[in-house]
Amino acid sequence: MSARRDGRQIHFMLLEMGAISHNNYGLWRHPDNQRRNFGDLAFWIEQARQLERGMFDAIFFADTLGISAGFGGAPDVALREGMHVPIHDPLTLIPAMAAVTKHLGFAATSSTTYEHPFSFARRMSSLDMLSGGRVGWNIVTSYLPGAAANFGIEPMPHETRYDRAQEYAEVAFKLWEQSWDEDAVRLDKEASMVSDPAKVHAINHEGTHFKVAGPHLMCPTPQRTPVIFQAGSSDRGREFAAKHAEGIFIGGYTEDILLSHVQDIRRIAAAAGRGHDEVRLFAEGNVVCAATDAEAEAKLADYMKLASADGYLAHRFGSGMDLSRYGHHEKIEDIVAAGGPGADHMARYPFPAGWTVGDIIEDAARLDRKRLFVCGGPEKCADEIERWSDTFDLDGFLMRGFLAPGTARDFADFVVPELQRRGRYRTQYEGTTLRENLFGAGHKRLPDSHPGAAYRRAPQGAE
Amino acid sequence: MSARRDGRQIHFMLLEMGAISHNNYGLWRHPDNQRRNFGDLAFWIEQARQLERGMFDAIFFADTLGISAGFGGAPDVALREGMHVPIHDPLTLIPAMAAVTKHLGFAATSSTTYEHPFSFARRMSSLDMLSGGRVGWNIVTSYLPGAAANFGIEPMPHETRYDRAQEYAEVAFKLWEQSWDEDAVRLDKEASMVSDPAKVHAINHEGTHFKVAGPHLMCPTPQRTPVIFQAGSSDRGREFAAKHAEGIFIGGYTEDILLSHVQDIRRIAAAAGRGHDEVRLFAEGNVVCAATDAEAEAKLADYMKLASADGYLAHRFGSGMDLSRYGHHEKIEDIVAAGGPGADHMARYPFPAGWTVGDIIEDAARLDRKRLFVCGGPEKCADEIERWSDTFDLDGFLMRGFLAPGTARDFADFVVPELQRRGRYRTQYEGTTLRENLFGAGHKRLPDSHPGAAYRRAPQGAE
Repeated sequence: MSARRDGRQIHFMLLEMGAISHNNYGLWRHPDNQRRNFGDLAFWIEQARQLERGMFDAIFFADTLGISAGFGGAPDVALREGMHVPIHDPLTLIPAMAAVTKHLGFAATSSTTYEHPFSFARRMSSLDMLSGGRVGWNIVTSYLPGAAANFGIEPMPHETRYDRAQEYAEVAFKLWEQSWDEDAVRLDKEASMVSDPAKVHAINHEGTHFKVAGPHLMCPTPQRTPVIFQAGSSDRGREFAAKHAEGIFIGGYTEDILLSHVQDIRRIAAAAGRGHDEVRLFAEGNVVCAATDAEAEAKLADYMKLASADGYLAHRFGSGMDLSRYGHHEKIEDIVAAGGPGADHMARYPFPAGWTVGDIIEDAARLDRKRLFVCGGPEKCADEIERWSDTFDLDGFLMRGFLAPGTARDFADFVVPELQRRGRYRTQYEGTTLRENLFGAGHKRLPDSHPGAAYRRAPQGAE
Repeated sequence: MSARRDGRQIHFMLLEMGAISHNNYGLWRHPDNQRRNFGDLAFWIEQARQLERGMFDAIFFADTLGISAGFGGAPDVALREGMHVPIHDPLTLIPAMAAVTKHLGFAATSSTTYEHPFSFARRMSSLDMLSGGRVGWNIVTSYLPGAAANFGIEPMPHETRYDRAQEYAEVAFKLWEQSWDEDAVRLDKEASMVSDPAKVHAINHEGTHFKVAGPHLMCPTPQRTPVIFQAGSSDRGREFAAKHAEGIFIGGYTEDILLSHVQDIRRIAAAAGRGHDEVRLFAEGNVVCAATDAEAEAKLADYMKLASADGYLAHRFGSGMDLSRYGHHEKIEDIVAAGGPGADHMARYPFPAGWTVGDIIEDAARLDRKRLFVCGGPEKCADEIERWSDTFDLDGFLMRGFLAPGTARDFADFVVPELQRRGRYRTQYEGTTLRENLFGAGHKRLPDSHPGAAYRRAPQGAE
């Protein structure tokens, strides 16, 4: 373990999904949980207000384009638990939240497999413009077979998906960074000129997966390219993230793996010419906070009463580890050795030696404590947040919600003042854009070291 | 000419586009026009508030996925005029407007050629849910070669586009009407059940153009299927509209043609088993209104000073009638006879005998008065609106904006009270959904006579 961070600012985003249940299953039944109102704009507006009060960098929307059918082999668990279904298109949630906030960022997941880059790039530019430069894009390549079946295509091999993602990002960067000169929009009444045609350019992209003429349909927005997020856990995924993402989610089932992933990504990013402060690394965070340790413990006990093991298992193991096929007493290492259904998937998780199916289920039901998990008063929470940030060289945390908007409200009330007292948290937002939330005042655009910046046109002489 | 309507309610929608210029070119330069702020949510929020004050049925967003390159052969005119570029994705504009209104509907154009029906259907369901049932879908099949080039596909033949549109709508209807039973969402705390898996169904669509498994990712929304709009002007387009659309835009370069189109659509709709009151027909409306005729005339004169002939010509003839190739003195009939560039296109317009290129240009610059065009005080405007509605059997008008939000404000101030006095306009909204704005209280869902209703599952017995 190394501790190379000290005294740096810590960043927070709230992990969201446009659904009734996302990470903490069963908790929709809590009387203080407003998630059942996920269809009301008022619910989302209140979430945004609480998050901006807590000076979060962003609300971060995960997404899926198919119902998870892993655990038990059918979508029944997902539907019963409200696990990612019914679910909004995340982009539809952003504008009304942007209208009532001034600084909070809005990151949304969008797949390079199912949306076309030309229309997606316009949609993001539109949102970046309307929000005053506060959107981010979490690039995913999609993995659910159920999603592929909704688009009538065969699931693509892992490498093909990443090749396509690479070209997709290239098309998007060209549209965002290259197509419109900075001063293309003139609004010149005398000349009766909205935009100067000489300063708007086709991109004429012709690649393996896409052929896109352009020009982009939207003029330069405050950030041009939205802040790029990624969470690659495979080798190829980590490499893609280290090269392209400005915010990266680091997973890892153990602390050793987490640290090795952090170091791996820092190394690849540095080799690609990206500075340590040009990439923000986030780990998942679970914080149950109250005025005192005892009150926080009571809150957590209250949550635990409602936790649903089925939901946690379906979420964590939905993409292949079908535990429902096995008895609770069966040992994971025996299943892996025998090569039964889901064995490949189980082999990729470093479960403690001797664990049984029952151990995994029990562990999952304990609110999935696989990442930073702290329950306590302000000091205890701040201690643990600092320790994790410093120990693992993390820039921040992607917080899971227990109640909505309760988790955001508790964070603003109890965690923020203590972290501010310690000098580890902003006392006001640094700028007006999401990129400035992450990287400080003035950092509205992609840095020159980012691969997307390579697509910018060289400044032109007199024309 | 026939006059079969008398005393019926007249409906209005405002034709919009997420751009600086749409219908009336050059007017962005007017000091009272706020369109230059098209990138600010506050601009759209104020538009929505003024429209709801005037009790419009809806704000209706046109859209395009490519820059028009017709007039003059290059996109220069479009860029200079701000004609549909830069342009927002219309769906990004709706949520913030929905958050500040309670009744106003939001119709948006989306192409069946460039978006996949599975993700599009979710997006619309999401918006229908968040707006409380206030969205509509204007089905277009797209025509701009420039749009096809942005998606790397060859422009499709007209018939193929409509075949695809037909199947696209079928997929969408299955997702909206068939996939989730009305009582599928339970939110049953005792049973720990968000949705009942027995009441959520795959659609397993396998057609010529699409293969979509489902289930739909969103539960039933207030309208399920958004209100369907269409503006088909070809024979195939008119037939598609008469069968599928609940609101139809009727064009026609002369009054005779307009009337024949209305009669044609009424006849096809009736033959398809659709009642006269199940299809609302709209024509374009241009109304410059003020407290007195003289003040309105002064307003119009003020607009005319800023009107740009280039913009009107590029808009109207952008898809093929390249007038810039000809001298102002050349007669249209000579060009058509000689079969020069754009002649095919010109032949489809019934220009008055003897008209020259110059006549068309001059006519276009007079604010494109090809539809209902009235300038005056409340009485004069109401007279002409009533006359058009009654003469042509029209249910309402799709109003063009001159200034934003001035046109909507003037309408609420001057036109609405007079039409109400005459009993031709609502004094309050009838319900809470867009469909109820069009068809009256209680009409939240597609009527049984609509082809989309055929995809509903028969009610199930005890299971």
